[in-house]
Amino acid sequence: MRLRNVNGAEEKIESHPSIVTPNHETHKGSWDKVFGNSNPIHIEIGMGKGQFIRGMALQNPNINFIGVEYYDSVLVRALEKFIVEDIPNVRLLRLDGEHLPTCFAPHELSRIYLNFSDPWPKIRHAKRRLTHERFLTIYRDLLASEGDLWFKTDNRLLFQFSLVSMNNFGMIFEDVSLNLHEEEPTDNIRTEYEQNWSDRGFPIYRVEARFNRKSEK
Amino acid sequence: MRLRNVNGAEEKIESHPSIVTPNHETHKGSWDKVFGNSNPIHIEIGMGKGQFIRGMALQNPNINFIGVEYYDSVLVRALEKFIVEDIPNVRLLRLDGEHLPTCFAPHELSRIYLNFSDPWPKIRHAKRRLTHERFLTIYRDLLASEGDLWFKTDNRLLFQFSLVSMNNFGMIFEDVSLNLHEEEPTDNIRTEYEQNWSDRGFPIYRVEARFNRKSEK
Repeated sequence: MRLRNVNGAEEKIESHPSIVTPNHETHKGSWDKVFGNSNPIHIEIGMGKGQFIRGMALQNPNINFIGVEYYDSVLVRALEKFIVEDIPNVRLLRLDGEHLPTCFAPHELSRIYLNFSDPWPKIRHAKRRLTHERFLTIYRDLLASEGDLWFKTDNRLLFQFSLVSMNNFGMIFEDVSLNLHEEEPTDNIRTEYEQNWSDRGFPIYRVEARFNRKSEK
Repeated sequence: MRLRNVNGAEEKIESHPSIVTPNHETHKGSWDKVFGNSNPIHIEIGMGKGQFIRGMALQNPNINFIGVEYYDSVLVRALEKFIVEDIPNVRLLRLDGEHLPTCFAPHELSRIYLNFSDPWPKIRHAKRRLTHERFLTIYRDLLASEGDLWFKTDNRLLFQFSLVSMNNFGMIFEDVSLNLHEEEPTDNIRTEYEQNWSDRGFPIYRVEARFNRKSEK
């Protein structure tokens, strides 16, 4: 996503602590208190403008959703959606994916969504891809034993890399789609980006996978 | 491939025992004697009209190739190629994939190719797909410890099924391509079918994978 500087983004974010949770480290292991219930927690890493997490939260009122986004200028666009609508089972976090373990306890999450993550096409940047083993290690620790990872993208090279990376990490594929909209599940929530690229005729790829707990050290 | 009855196919096959090896069970564990050398052996299961195995054999004179095909009417088309050209490192076998263990000893093969295998789209026929675990078990036993399986297809649903099946079997992906001709390796040999479907604009999928010998029982 192209980043533009948004004037006043930081102030706007700070003025809505009931949506963008501040001091997030203090909730590590106790997000049930933030939500006021012990429903499963799903997070989206790199939430963008928030269309996906909004749709998911409305569709699944008995699941708690946390949208994670590093860039203020993007986060504020998602925030605007949740200011006009009061959706009780959503919180947003301003956070880098690498720092997830500062905010969540081991096994605290039930699902992680990665949607249209930055492909980092240069080989020397492979470590920054959110499906690199460096991140898979983090996800494995944060997910509950039955938890899983759902990843979708239009980027063929990133998807190829991710299938190999996830397989080599010992993850177990539950489902793979190489053209999600050809056989679109009725509950698929499209992101803004997904809608746009699909309209242009590009296939959307998706994998659903879990971690192999037998080989856990 | 559409099957047509070919008059005299059986007689033609039987009259070229130096190409289509008869009594193949007798060579189990001693294919080096058939070829007169101990080069690695690669087989293609479902060879079709033989363009792939011919190209591979010419490109790799230090590898022995065996094309396996069940249908006389198809096998005879491949045979015709090898009658007009004498290629020493090729043999053909009239055999059903399920019966491979009658002809090859454990670990006798270095690579197995599956190209554009029958997709068997109906769920009740899933067991017939050549990447079903029923077949993967056979391949694992026949391949040498460093051996691998290369599978390419234009059929999206079969490829999706195969990625999940191979992953769930514990196979280790070495490479995945979701549009092989976009980044075509210089040594890729196209089958007749591959050429045809690619010309029509369909992506060709390929996975290269090996078996996880650590988990072998």
